[in-house]
Amino acid sequence: MPARPSEDELIARYFAPLAGPAGLGLNDDVALLAPPAGRELVLTTDALVAGVHFFADDPAGAVARKALRVNLSDLAAKGAEPIGFLIALALPSDWTAAWLEAFAAGLGGDAALYRCPLIGGDTVRTPGPLTIAVTALGAVEKGRMAARSGVRAGDRLYVSGAIGDAAIGLRLRLGLGPELAQEHRRYLLDRYLLPQPRLALAPAMAAYAHGGMDVSDGFVGDLTKMLRVSGVSARVELTRLPLSPAARAAIAADPALFDIAATGGDDYELLAAVAPEQSAAFEAAAAAAGVAVTLVGEAFAGALPPRFIGRDGREAAFRHGSFSHF
Amino acid sequence: MPARPSEDELIARYFAPLAGPAGLGLNDDVALLAPPAGRELVLTTDALVAGVHFFADDPAGAVARKALRVNLSDLAAKGAEPIGFLIALALPSDWTAAWLEAFAAGLGGDAALYRCPLIGGDTVRTPGPLTIAVTALGAVEKGRMAARSGVRAGDRLYVSGAIGDAAIGLRLRLGLGPELAQEHRRYLLDRYLLPQPRLALAPAMAAYAHGGMDVSDGFVGDLTKMLRVSGVSARVELTRLPLSPAARAAIAADPALFDIAATGGDDYELLAAVAPEQSAAFEAAAAAAGVAVTLVGEAFAGALPPRFIGRDGREAAFRHGSFSHF
Repeated sequence: MPARPSEDELIARYFAPLAGPAGLGLNDDVALLAPPAGRELVLTTDALVAGVHFFADDPAGAVARKALRVNLSDLAAKGAEPIGFLIALALPSDWTAAWLEAFAAGLGGDAALYRCPLIGGDTVRTPGPLTIAVTALGAVEKGRMAARSGVRAGDRLYVSGAIGDAAIGLRLRLGLGPELAQEHRRYLLDRYLLPQPRLALAPAMAAYAHGGMDVSDGFVGDLTKMLRVSGVSARVELTRLPLSPAARAAIAADPALFDIAATGGDDYELLAAVAPEQSAAFEAAAAAAGVAVTLVGEAFAGALPPRFIGRDGREAAFRHGSFSHF
Repeated sequence: MPARPSEDELIARYFAPLAGPAGLGLNDDVALLAPPAGRELVLTTDALVAGVHFFADDPAGAVARKALRVNLSDLAAKGAEPIGFLIALALPSDWTAAWLEAFAAGLGGDAALYRCPLIGGDTVRTPGPLTIAVTALGAVEKGRMAARSGVRAGDRLYVSGAIGDAAIGLRLRLGLGPELAQEHRRYLLDRYLLPQPRLALAPAMAAYAHGGMDVSDGFVGDLTKMLRVSGVSARVELTRLPLSPAARAAIAADPALFDIAATGGDDYELLAAVAPEQSAAFEAAAAAAGVAVTLVGEAFAGALPPRFIGRDGREAAFRHGSFSHF
């Protein structure tokens, strides 16, 4: 059995090749970068724990990608362009070179794909589960960040992509879902395994959205949270909730999955609140960016929680408005 | 037994009161800040795991302070002034309100003391040990960062404060140390528990140090690393190694502790490489800042590892040049 590498050897072998110029070759304890001229900085951090946020036997590359992507999703929701990221990795002692190679390959692939280079990190050992904390740094045009608190009465409420795929995919992963065509099953499992951060929508968010937030803990709960922080209410039509063909097939097989779709987590789609006079421009910008956006409701003045109107025309009540990992 | 709070309640209760303006009240997923004009950004991340980097029964406030301070130490070594920090906290399920209150109080105390506000974070649950990843952001005058790779032949090598206290303190904590006067014992234990980031020295580092690094994994190992990355060699007089009265007393009782002091970790003192013609100004600036700095050696051209000259005038050999947590 080969000797375990030191932390420095491990960084030099697996992570230094991924580093952008600001990472100083990962030879220093810090990243150094010139701030983007005339823009504001957006920073976010999200931690993932094996057995809590992903399965310990998920492919290493997918785990790495997910750890980065959940942070990129936050940047996208704010209308920010990625600058780079730092990663703090707590590794259990049973890691293998093959696992770490695949992890680094996944991380490097996404760093290149999303133009968000690795600029720093820390690697420590843990007697517990693999734990990954990524901090991502982005830039947005001054005064243009789509804040969670930025929704105004009268705003149109949009959601990107499709909702519920990951929550249904998680049930399939746990062996709880209905029988589905192989193609639908694969799609839903993949949507749980690998979020798609909507960075292509970021410029449209910065240009047109007053309010923005990514859906990580469930559509109903996260939208409720955004409206509460913004101090407004809303009416949301659940019949408009965008569902993928696979999610539709799953819900057709088990109608109870609709609530799972509306309230489950891990969507990593974006919520956008846009003034009515800008909604056409927002929709056009989203179409040009290749990201579907769906109008699901409208904000209005008031302190009450949003009303979610179901398919029967009545207000829906959810047992769990939101999924929380904590 | 009261119900467990949600993640949002937990953040609102314990962490939102610590947030600086860039933290947006911790109501958003991100921090937003204007980059410092005409300066460069310095970012660093360090993770601590219970049972690896601190004792699970260390006081909660001290754990929080240590998690922030090890990052502030990196900023200080680079000559950077703190801007703010993000914290990713993986909490085991047995946390108590009293523990978290003390943790937040320690964190907030240091955030105020070092003018480094909390600007963001993430709180997740873990089935493993408490794990804390802090990412700190600082600013340094353009082109003035004291890089680990910046040591030049001819530079004088300085170290701040006193070396070895924490390594000896750790041995006392483990019940391995010699009998000492209560006052010395307390001092050494405290130096292990609570690093003192040398932020007061940061302006002098930026103004006068070509090269800089904090000593976290041991004086001998970290200095060797800085010189290797800089591509220079050095001669270091171990008789000049600054030792506290408590460390001197411990070494007098057990001479083998000298090697522990020179190679042990957790000092969080600074290494500075300063050109000879600037060394008087550096020493004066350090004195004005109230931080002791000691000249320990001189860098010269060459690829060989530095020579550490012992008290007998011969080159010292260390069994372990460096302490690595990994």
